[in-house]
Amino acid sequence: MDLAPNQTAAVAPGTEARGPLAGFRILELGHYVAAPFATRLLGDLGAEVIKVEPPGGDPVRQWGARYKGSAPWWSVHARNKRCITLDLKKPGAREVVLDLVRTCDALVENHRPGQLAKMGLGEEVLRAAKPDLVIARVSGYGQDGPDRDKAAFGVIGEAIGGLRHLTNHAPGTTDLPPVRVGVSIGDSVAGIYAALGVVAALLRRERTGQGGEVDVALSESIFSLLEGALPEYGALGAVRQPSGGGIATAAPSNAYRSRDGVWVLIAANSEPLWRKLAALMGQPELAADPRFSGNQQRVAHVRELDGLINAWTVTLDAAALEAALRGADIPHTRVYTVADIAADPQMRARGMVQQVQDGMLGPILHPGVVPRVDGTPNAPRSTGPAVGADNDAVLGALPGYDAARIAALREEGVL
Amino acid sequence: MDLAPNQTAAVAPGTEARGPLAGFRILELGHYVAAPFATRLLGDLGAEVIKVEPPGGDPVRQWGARYKGSAPWWSVHARNKRCITLDLKKPGAREVVLDLVRTCDALVENHRPGQLAKMGLGEEVLRAAKPDLVIARVSGYGQDGPDRDKAAFGVIGEAIGGLRHLTNHAPGTTDLPPVRVGVSIGDSVAGIYAALGVVAALLRRERTGQGGEVDVALSESIFSLLEGALPEYGALGAVRQPSGGGIATAAPSNAYRSRDGVWVLIAANSEPLWRKLAALMGQPELAADPRFSGNQQRVAHVRELDGLINAWTVTLDAAALEAALRGADIPHTRVYTVADIAADPQMRARGMVQQVQDGMLGPILHPGVVPRVDGTPNAPRSTGPAVGADNDAVLGALPGYDAARIAALREEGVL
Repeated sequence: MDLAPNQTAAVAPGTEARGPLAGFRILELGHYVAAPFATRLLGDLGAEVIKVEPPGGDPVRQWGARYKGSAPWWSVHARNKRCITLDLKKPGAREVVLDLVRTCDALVENHRPGQLAKMGLGEEVLRAAKPDLVIARVSGYGQDGPDRDKAAFGVIGEAIGGLRHLTNHAPGTTDLPPVRVGVSIGDSVAGIYAALGVVAALLRRERTGQGGEVDVALSESIFSLLEGALPEYGALGAVRQPSGGGIATAAPSNAYRSRDGVWVLIAANSEPLWRKLAALMGQPELAADPRFSGNQQRVAHVRELDGLINAWTVTLDAAALEAALRGADIPHTRVYTVADIAADPQMRARGMVQQVQDGMLGPILHPGVVPRVDGTPNAPRSTGPAVGADNDAVLGALPGYDAARIAALREEGVL
Repeated sequence: MDLAPNQTAAVAPGTEARGPLAGFRILELGHYVAAPFATRLLGDLGAEVIKVEPPGGDPVRQWGARYKGSAPWWSVHARNKRCITLDLKKPGAREVVLDLVRTCDALVENHRPGQLAKMGLGEEVLRAAKPDLVIARVSGYGQDGPDRDKAAFGVIGEAIGGLRHLTNHAPGTTDLPPVRVGVSIGDSVAGIYAALGVVAALLRRERTGQGGEVDVALSESIFSLLEGALPEYGALGAVRQPSGGGIATAAPSNAYRSRDGVWVLIAANSEPLWRKLAALMGQPELAADPRFSGNQQRVAHVRELDGLINAWTVTLDAAALEAALRGADIPHTRVYTVADIAADPQMRARGMVQQVQDGMLGPILHPGVVPRVDGTPNAPRSTGPAVGADNDAVLGALPGYDAARIAALREEGVL
């Protein structure tokens, strides 16, 4: 998919970092999603990120759809990063990591808890190299506690955090299982929290000189999203239950099917909006129907209500349905696929869909930077590089690493 | 629900702030979820937060289940905040806001774009009062672009960000609509991003003296979670589709029903794990079945595969099923409700479930702090206060606000 030229962002690799974190240097000892997403966000905000991969590369390089022999995801997941290889199981790698740590402000990792310490890279060793280092660790269940050594699977952390239970149709509606949120939500939210923890600790360091340890658990990151569920349970014994496409406390708000099979979300969960919708449906009397008068009654009869609305929506193609809702000023949207997002005028106007030049893949679409901070570059400075692409440049800039030493590391299989 | 005494955290209101953001002061002009969640996170990390509410209070005070006349959620949502009232529509409020701004490092708001400017609190006015202020704005679609003035409904932003489409059973499986992620995911993720933006801008300010503007859109925050969906679409025209309780690219990984009706998540999506599971099911021959040999074949036949696994799980009660999976070392968990979370030994060991003393509600359960940063208080310093509880203390500490002036503001209905 091509964007019009005036919506094309040109990437100039090596462009000087801008953004609020320009001047900070982050070392990533990560793989898969959580830690690399944290450092991607830090890089998007201007930090210099050095990612360490095993010589075979991070498995994400092959995840999802493939294009020209690699994953388009990689172009985004590793943008604004310099990628070097190190076989951390080789004894020679440890010293290289410590030499890198000496030049960095923070380290972000998502190995199993305790694994870096087993490799001789425990906290004391890292602090001996860089006393004010900020160390952020992402794991399934946290760095301590009885379950810290359990294997971390994203879907399991999400289920333990309470989100899988709540992402389901209402009890009694279907025998189908609860739905997975369609993305790696646990890893991603943990990654954002890790980025927040790193920046907060760096801010403290700026004033006190003190380093810090950030400990983010995937299960806890998900649990943090559960609003009032815990205090409500504690106070009332109420166990929150799922409510399908609706909201447990407001109606109508759901996705309804159009004649041509598109799901259209309608949020008419206030008295004036519901009156407008009933009129638009040609059934103004519904607004006065005691089953649907007031939010509480509508919630109590939500299945009948949604059924009536759906019986109306299936008589209209999506375009006509959207036009009618727009005309009546009722909040709505078709349920966007990524194709809808890529074409959306607001997303484009905000630079959230950009075409950039990838050295390996050619022109490729990248999402924009979130959060937008004034002065943050709106375009990526670089796309995800090849395995070990920056070995010579990054190591060569370390004191004492001349060409012969780098060649020796390569010879020993450390790189 | 009571925790055992040794798991009880006592709250001492007024406890001195600790945590990496101690010493920073944040003004919240927010309501509902997104901006208040951002400032709750900043407060959890040690910042002093002053929340401005209309004299009637933030509607969230009444959201969700009620207990002793208020929402248990409020105890958590407004913890570590001082709450003052200001009727921003009254002319006298503007000067009070500016006097507060002069004492603060950052302002976080989620009014409609442009609304604060209409109240005489636009960027230039705020900067005139505090030139290096960090201003963070959360909105549905961003501070500019053709849709900036559209009403922001969380569910609509989530649908535009692409998550509603992906959170559904696979096409052709059911006529039921896509599922809402069972929490205010868009508001919450936007809130975390806003907190990240604030702290990043404060870090830059520490080095440069420069303030900053943070602009977070709910729709874009959700879109940021879509992994490789955009570059895959751009390169290949591939539109990512939902896959129910499973993962599109790995199998088996789903929730399966026990005999006693509990959903148990099983993640056996590797060759050794799948062999173990087939053996545990008493059907080791399935591992060699060409339909299920290798991940690609299992994904292609995932409905048959899930059906076979479910036919086994429904023969066992959840406790027996979990014991069997644990014995075979196959990653699994029951799908946690909030009751399961509250009882979970790991969550308790990590301080993620704490009993605190709420001045209005009595003992109440609070979730712990995410991310955990060493030195961050593990217990909240205070619970969500009553409307206007801190009017006198906060205003009285401003230069020039004596008792007579505060009384006059109260008289005018500004407070």
